[in-house]
Amino acid sequence: MADTIAFLTPDSGILDRREQIVADLSAFLPSNRLIHKPRELVPFETDGYLAYRRRPLCVALPETTEQVASVLGYCHTHKIPVIPRGAGTSLCGGAIPQEDAVVIGLSAMTRIIDVDFLNRCATVQAGVTNLSISEAVGAQGFFYAPDPSSQLACTIGGNIGMNSGGAHCLKYGVTTNNLLGVKMVLIDGTVIELGGKALDSGGYDLLGVICGSEGQLGIVTEATVRLLAKPEGARPVLFGFDSAEAAGTCVADIIAAGIVPVAIEFMDKPAIDICEAFAHAGYPMDVEALLIVEVEGSEAEMEAMLAAICDIARQHGVKTVRESQSATEAALIWKGRKSAFGATGRIADYICMDGTVPLSQLAYVLRKTSEITDRYGLRVANVFHAGDGNMHPLILYNINDPDDAARAEAAGNEILKLCVDAGGCLTGEHGVGIEKRDLMRHQYSDQDLAQQMAVRAAFDPDWLLNPSKVFPLEGRT
Amino acid sequence: MADTIAFLTPDSGILDRREQIVADLSAFLPSNRLIHKPRELVPFETDGYLAYRRRPLCVALPETTEQVASVLGYCHTHKIPVIPRGAGTSLCGGAIPQEDAVVIGLSAMTRIIDVDFLNRCATVQAGVTNLSISEAVGAQGFFYAPDPSSQLACTIGGNIGMNSGGAHCLKYGVTTNNLLGVKMVLIDGTVIELGGKALDSGGYDLLGVICGSEGQLGIVTEATVRLLAKPEGARPVLFGFDSAEAAGTCVADIIAAGIVPVAIEFMDKPAIDICEAFAHAGYPMDVEALLIVEVEGSEAEMEAMLAAICDIARQHGVKTVRESQSATEAALIWKGRKSAFGATGRIADYICMDGTVPLSQLAYVLRKTSEITDRYGLRVANVFHAGDGNMHPLILYNINDPDDAARAEAAGNEILKLCVDAGGCLTGEHGVGIEKRDLMRHQYSDQDLAQQMAVRAAFDPDWLLNPSKVFPLEGRT
Repeated sequence: MADTIAFLTPDSGILDRREQIVADLSAFLPSNRLIHKPRELVPFETDGYLAYRRRPLCVALPETTEQVASVLGYCHTHKIPVIPRGAGTSLCGGAIPQEDAVVIGLSAMTRIIDVDFLNRCATVQAGVTNLSISEAVGAQGFFYAPDPSSQLACTIGGNIGMNSGGAHCLKYGVTTNNLLGVKMVLIDGTVIELGGKALDSGGYDLLGVICGSEGQLGIVTEATVRLLAKPEGARPVLFGFDSAEAAGTCVADIIAAGIVPVAIEFMDKPAIDICEAFAHAGYPMDVEALLIVEVEGSEAEMEAMLAAICDIARQHGVKTVRESQSATEAALIWKGRKSAFGATGRIADYICMDGTVPLSQLAYVLRKTSEITDRYGLRVANVFHAGDGNMHPLILYNINDPDDAARAEAAGNEILKLCVDAGGCLTGEHGVGIEKRDLMRHQYSDQDLAQQMAVRAAFDPDWLLNPSKVFPLEGRT
Repeated sequence: MADTIAFLTPDSGILDRREQIVADLSAFLPSNRLIHKPRELVPFETDGYLAYRRRPLCVALPETTEQVASVLGYCHTHKIPVIPRGAGTSLCGGAIPQEDAVVIGLSAMTRIIDVDFLNRCATVQAGVTNLSISEAVGAQGFFYAPDPSSQLACTIGGNIGMNSGGAHCLKYGVTTNNLLGVKMVLIDGTVIELGGKALDSGGYDLLGVICGSEGQLGIVTEATVRLLAKPEGARPVLFGFDSAEAAGTCVADIIAAGIVPVAIEFMDKPAIDICEAFAHAGYPMDVEALLIVEVEGSEAEMEAMLAAICDIARQHGVKTVRESQSATEAALIWKGRKSAFGATGRIADYICMDGTVPLSQLAYVLRKTSEITDRYGLRVANVFHAGDGNMHPLILYNINDPDDAARAEAAGNEILKLCVDAGGCLTGEHGVGIEKRDLMRHQYSDQDLAQQMAVRAAFDPDWLLNPSKVFPLEGRT
């Protein structure tokens, strides 16, 4: 993509002192945990957004909260920008560095500190991957609910930064609904603890504002998360429709009837083609839109909920209804859905939008999205968390064609504005990062943004933490 | 209770200008909406905490967001403290005024603005009572989940201020889990909107920090809340035990097994006696502790969950198990529980603690609580949300005996410290207010409190909103 977005101008004073800074930081870290050679810095130049690259000053990979505190304290004293990084899977450029910044990567902090079944929670270091929490407690019948598609790789620290969701968050909520406490280092090296094993606590809910703050308020080093009991059974069911609009209004009617399955995922024809070619999930190929609805519980409970859902689907002219008949088939159905982004990447470059809309607007926004991409001469595949109204149009383009890239970006911006104008918002789970920074004024009034920035300044008055992100560069307070 | 807690010294300059202030404010409000005669101010001198009284300067009862903004803007310009008030049911003194303050009561803002079944949400003015939301949508099969015992009287604005819970929050979460958006007036009269009908939004989760901020960050005038579908069926079941400890460990084991009923309420023998005498709910009188466990769903689902719970209860030597057999009986069982505080008030004055502990500590904290009240020669009744670990010891005393009152307060403080030391917190749902303000240092480090106050100052730099509450008076930043 064309490098069209503005970054902050690097501080030449910091660049000139690079060698001294590296030498100073090496005192705080094990010898193999400070990366500064140009070739070794390449993997840290961008993240899952891929549209922009910047080489950071150096990368610190601390192993303990104390090491994080030492590095942050040093950067604070010397006014050096800091970019927190988990696994670098951000889809909005949340972990893209800048030239005068120290990246603090949490990938070496992978210890599961405590599993407490009695209180249904686990405490882990921030670099632990999302999936490994569920793996650590699966044998005892528990799991950690939020399940981003990148859950094999993404870290709990990154999930907290972006308030990540996933297919099963319709029933279980997103990260903020499953986070009980954090240990966090402030920019000056102070270590604070928020929340804990008990529900709620006196004083302000700073835990809530940390979750989704995109690394701008501090660096989380430990998290206590809620564990849930695995359901007795779970079954994905495929519903095929002749039009995207019929599928979209069907979703709205299911939710409006008060039925909350574990997941309602939507795929349009292009997405079905892409995912089926990759995963051989057995998706129906003769439909224009597919819903994957997962129900769970006892056999009786699943049957009752499915009957109610089928009634509604029939009112919208459902063409195919197919229940998964085995665990293998269920796993394939989900493999197809969860590999959607990777499978799309095999056939084209893409940018993935993340607008969220009220369910009543789902069918309308799908239709307008397709009008917009048609107008720009671009292909689009829609695969998303329909029950939450969290849309993910994947706009396909050629990253090496600057004109194509510019059109993809323009179309993406129009789609996000459409979501906001339909009563929704810019981002459901991927974050603002650098990608949607300049669209924030479309969502928020100047007063709204000023209040958010005032809160930010209460944590980081010098704007050292992830400074290029979230807020438009102009008009900052 | 002895007036032992410090209030801020009233600003004599403001007191001297009382007549001018009343005259100025009357320009912003309908003629019957500004209360300033001493006799008419009496009902606003205290709230559900009752321990302290202060007569405010005057009380404004605005009908619109614009009127709230005008009054706040005036108070901001003239540096007059402001005390937001809902129905005045606060149990921690959150709505107790001070002499130099203007109370802004939301009780005249009772309009249900919009009910949107398609998006499963309702938008209401802040003075709407909790229960009236469920009443407005009940015929269509929906309800608003958080159910404080005061739900007949308490307002949604007050619920947001205190992040209120209730018996059924074990399954459905507390206010913060059911709040989608607010319209809020900042201290300078600026109106902002946070959240909305779509899930999540870009930027910081300021909605989360507003919920539970006890009226110190702004005044919420409208709220958009989540509506849930009523379950197919629901049934409370009574489990009687020979000891409080057996009941307590039974609760911990139910939750540790991953079973989440809608509600698990605990009553010890004194609470059973008090509630049965008032409500004739049919509670067993030959047990030392009672659990009210509510299951819901289809018949098959309720049966399955109950069977699993009964298995665990038997392991703890349960003495009595009785399922409600009719809607009338179920209503009586809940009437007994929900009237516990009122029924206690008939036999003695009391203070109600609100500490929350990890479930593994429930039995231990119950035993220590009884040791503490024994040592002070006071009676205690325990009735609380056991599934959440949210304890409500009611310490009985005589409000007209200063020595008794001082001992009750001292015992209460010891119990709250016990909860914190057991890994819990000072307050699960009642808030800090004035009651627990000076205990905040027991829960939080100086750094923790400094960061909370920095966030507060980002909203209200002059500390005009509810200034005597939440934070210890000394050491404020």
